[in-house]
Amino acid sequence: MSASQRPPAVAEARLRVRYAETDQMGVVYHSNFVIWFEVGRVELLRSLGVTYQQMEIADDCHLPVVDLRCRYKAPARYDEEILVRTVFKNIRDSLIHFGYEVVREADSTLLAEGETTHIVTDSTMKKRPLPDKYLRLFYRAMGRE
Amino acid sequence: MSASQRPPAVAEARLRVRYAETDQMGVVYHSNFVIWFEVGRVELLRSLGVTYQQMEIADDCHLPVVDLRCRYKAPARYDEEILVRTVFKNIRDSLIHFGYEVVREADSTLLAEGETTHIVTDSTMKKRPLPDKYLRLFYRAMGRE
Amino acid sequence: MSASQRPPAVAEARLRVRYAETDQMGVVYHSNFVIWFEVGRVELLRSLGVTYQQMEIADDCHLPVVDLRCRYKAPARYDEEILVRTVFKNIRDSLIHFGYEVVREADSTLLAEGETTHIVTDSTMKKRPLPDKYLRLFYRAMGRE
Amino acid sequence: MSASQRPPAVAEARLRVRYAETDQMGVVYHSNFVIWFEVGRVELLRSLGVTYQQMEIADDCHLPVVDLRCRYKAPARYDEEILVRTVFKNIRDSLIHFGYEVVREADSTLLAEGETTHIVTDSTMKKRPLPDKYLRLFYRAMGRE
Repeated sequence: MSASQRPPAVAEARLRVRYAETDQMGVVYHSNFVIWFEVGRVELLRSLGVTYQQMEIADDCHLPVVDLRCRYKAPARYDEEILVRTVFKNIRDSLIHFGYEVVREADSTLLAEGETTHIVTDSTMKKRPLPDKYLRLFYRAMGRE
Repeated sequence: MSASQRPPAVAEARLRVRYAETDQMGVVYHSNFVIWFEVGRVELLRSLGVTYQQMEIADDCHLPVVDLRCRYKAPARYDEEILVRTVFKNIRDSLIHFGYEVVREADSTLLAEGETTHIVTDSTMKKRPLPDKYLRLFYRAMGRE
Repeated sequence: MSASQRPPAVAEARLRVRYAETDQMGVVYHSNFVIWFEVGRVELLRSLGVTYQQMEIADDCHLPVVDLRCRYKAPARYDEEILVRTVFKNIRDSLIHFGYEVVREADSTLLAEGETTHIVTDSTMKKRPLPDKYLRLFYRAMGRE
Repeated sequence: MSASQRPPAVAEARLRVRYAETDQMGVVYHSNFVIWFEVGRVELLRSLGVTYQQMEIADDCHLPVVDLRCRYKAPARYDEEILVRTVFKNIRDSLIHFGYEVVREADSTLLAEGETTHIVTDSTMKKRPLPDKYLRLFYRAMGRE
């Protein structure tokens, strides 16, 4: 059995819906899911021993979003406990794709799913390759060697 | 020449980047573009004589987002004047697709483009058809009769 | 020794600074502390067995803010773990005062302190007395009988 | 009649309430007024020919908030046009106090009033004096020479 068959790493971030995140329809305003995606991918990095802070400061490695997609399935409501599951979908030397599932913890209802694509840049927003140490780490997290 | 060849309505909403909308990379945090899309589509409705407020209150007609897509081309920065151009991409009886371009006004640089899909619901989030008066109005705004 | 000498209840809410909460100065934008205050007072209520959701829905008891004060002592930064300590400062039949301390967990640095005053209203924003069950509960949490 | 009796400069910033700014009580969530204060003071500076961007970049002059106060009088609602009136309340060499009134434009109802105090710092958050050119300009805007 090859290493490529290892299951990919899935990080789980937990958060509770804030009153500030609701809107006058009585549900979470949709742009907040995009912020929750960020909470999710930071947690995926942390689960691998990487902080995004350290990527930015120690390695001058920034990950601006170039493509965002979100499909909303069911509304999230005030004070609910939310689970954000994040995985690497794909990685090429200057591009990282993350995938997300946003789930209501109480009954495991899928509230939204989405993807973001990020380019790797330096602090001046110039494209640069992802440092090897991260590339290897992230590939392994995808279940590849 | 047929009515179907009229150009579609494009609404232009103007806004100025707030300090609160920037992040520590020195550019606008990406979820704010999703809020700007909302500013854009509200302006498209207003340009047709419709307020979203009135759709919600007078007609019990709500438009939750079910699909969101945004492609980021260039960063927006603090205090820049931003133009959001919004059009109807497609309308079916309970679904409305909007298209957006976010442009830096000073030099007409395209910063982002995207689409949102909305279902028409009542205040309990139950799907309902778009009232005829809106359907006709929105079709006409698409350049169709 | 009288019951009035019991120490007041202090609730501790934990959160982690999100990238979306930073601004281009590289620190948390100041309005986010106001949202963190809300996270703190919801946690104070929860620590007493009360959810704000239940106050709103079951008892038609809303707590809009009428006065807000925040003194900023030191900046909060991305990814830091933050502790929000909340207490009741005072309660009169239609007014509740909360007090807050926002602390960086790693080194216990006080980042901000503040107060909010809330009136008790029904869902139409009309002033109403705080139901007795809450009044008794909150008084006890202040160390009074 | 002395120059000191000139009326102080009042800047007026206009904005429209966004759906994202409402909460499930059907009114604007209170932390957004703090962001509107920022919109107001940036406009006060601009009315004097100063951009905050230029203060930060050209003069390494930053204005973090050290004290915030807001008194809420009446709720703001979705799609309302809002006027933020901003004045200098006081200026000392490293401290600037701004005062704000948030008004519903349609009927001139006062929705909130508040103050913020800012220290003048360099980009490393170290206190520094306000450059003379700004000091003179801001004093004059207060109606003093």
